Amino acid sequence: MSQITPTERTRVRRLPKRAVYDREVLYRILDEALVCHIGFVADGKPVVIPTGYARHGDNLYIHGSTASRMLRELGTGVDVSVAVTLLDGLVLARSAFHHSMNYRSVVVFGKATVLSEPAEKREALRLFTEHIAPGRWQDVRPPNENELKATAVLRLPLAEASAKMRTGGPLDDDDDYALPVWAGVLPMRLTPASPISDERLGQGIAIPKYVNDYDRTKI
Amino acid sequence: MSQITPTERTRVRRLPKRAVYDREVLYRILDEALVCHIGFVADGKPVVIPTGYARHGDNLYIHGSTASRMLRELGTGVDVSVAVTLLDGLVLARSAFHHSMNYRSVVVFGKATVLSEPAEKREALRLFTEHIAPGRWQDVRPPNENELKATAVLRLPLAEASAKMRTGGPLDDDDDYALPVWAGVLPMRLTPASPISDERLGQGIAIPKYVNDYDRTKI
Repeated sequence: MSQITPTERTRVRRLPKRAVYDREVLYRILDEALVCHIGFVADGKPVVIPTGYARHGDNLYIHGSTASRMLRELGTGVDVSVAVTLLDGLVLARSAFHHSMNYRSVVVFGKATVLSEPAEKREALRLFTEHIAPGRWQDVRPPNENELKATAVLRLPLAEASAKMRTGGPLDDDDDYALPVWAGVLPMRLTPASPISDERLGQGIAIPKYVNDYDRTKI
Repeated sequence: MSQITPTERTRVRRLPKRAVYDREVLYRILDEALVCHIGFVADGKPVVIPTGYARHGDNLYIHGSTASRMLRELGTGVDVSVAVTLLDGLVLARSAFHHSMNYRSVVVFGKATVLSEPAEKREALRLFTEHIAPGRWQDVRPPNENELKATAVLRLPLAEASAKMRTGGPLDDDDDYALPVWAGVLPMRLTPASPISDERLGQGIAIPKYVNDYDRTKI
């Protein structure tokens, strides 16, 4: 379940150096997914919390929440591990043992630092907004000084990071292929339903194209 | 973003004791989701890894992988934190600052133990199989002795666990409601595409009803 298999998109860009190749895969997974799980150590014990994030260049920006408050208390330069996972399908084999899932995931290790400069935090808010819905930033009211103060952002370099994926159908034991059992893959994808306009939306305001045409696989 | 709001399903069952109420919410989230993120401490540093799981009663069973091998090395009774998150929608507000996500999540803390009895591991494999696709276990070849030996399973009691969720539309600042900006929710859901039968599938084997009618929200 651990080998990295090139996707159609990455295959054409493949470069001789594995590190570069891996980086493209990493970026694509991080850019498509919406939620990360950040782990840190508090009082010697592990804590894992889901939160929003965005990638820019070789850095991951992690959105403030309970997690970041705890991290802020722990000071700067705290060790974290961040995992991002896209579930692509359920792999139904002929034996219980060979059931699996198709997925793409990234795990990052490193020291996260808390952003303190308002300009940096403003840029991170832009990245978060654009990560949720590309094209959104130009439409919305930008953050003011108080909002920047209330925003906690962690930056984590993507220096120590790895991608894993599983693709394809079930791999059964030779003897099991003769069993009269359906086997295959049920592809799964995070898909949008119809947008729900806010109850207090002003008259004549149309749903933006980037909402109507929303598709994470085209990010 | 942290209050627990009753769903239609839990509201009717609501009992005077908050603990019971929370437990029903917890169960429902854990039963609907497919992937968990488990965090543990290795060499004093946090590690977060995605993996499969299943819930039965007041226990979470976590599927063997790299994570469990590392945990097995750490011995029994190791502290872990497990998070399970369902993304329900993107919340697009009129200001960048109030952008959010609708979600349901569970975070569990506790000591995980490695299952050693073959009967326990067999039951865990049944739970994993049924968690991926309810109805599947009766169709597939059950695990043999070697497969049980090769299966690593952690059990984590749901004693210290909490659920969080956000529902509903954006909450904007009073002054921002006059802005000519679309605001609302884009609901998101993990949905199946058409099943892909295995290339080596025997002739005349139909796709089971539980695959064709697959719907995590009806779990």
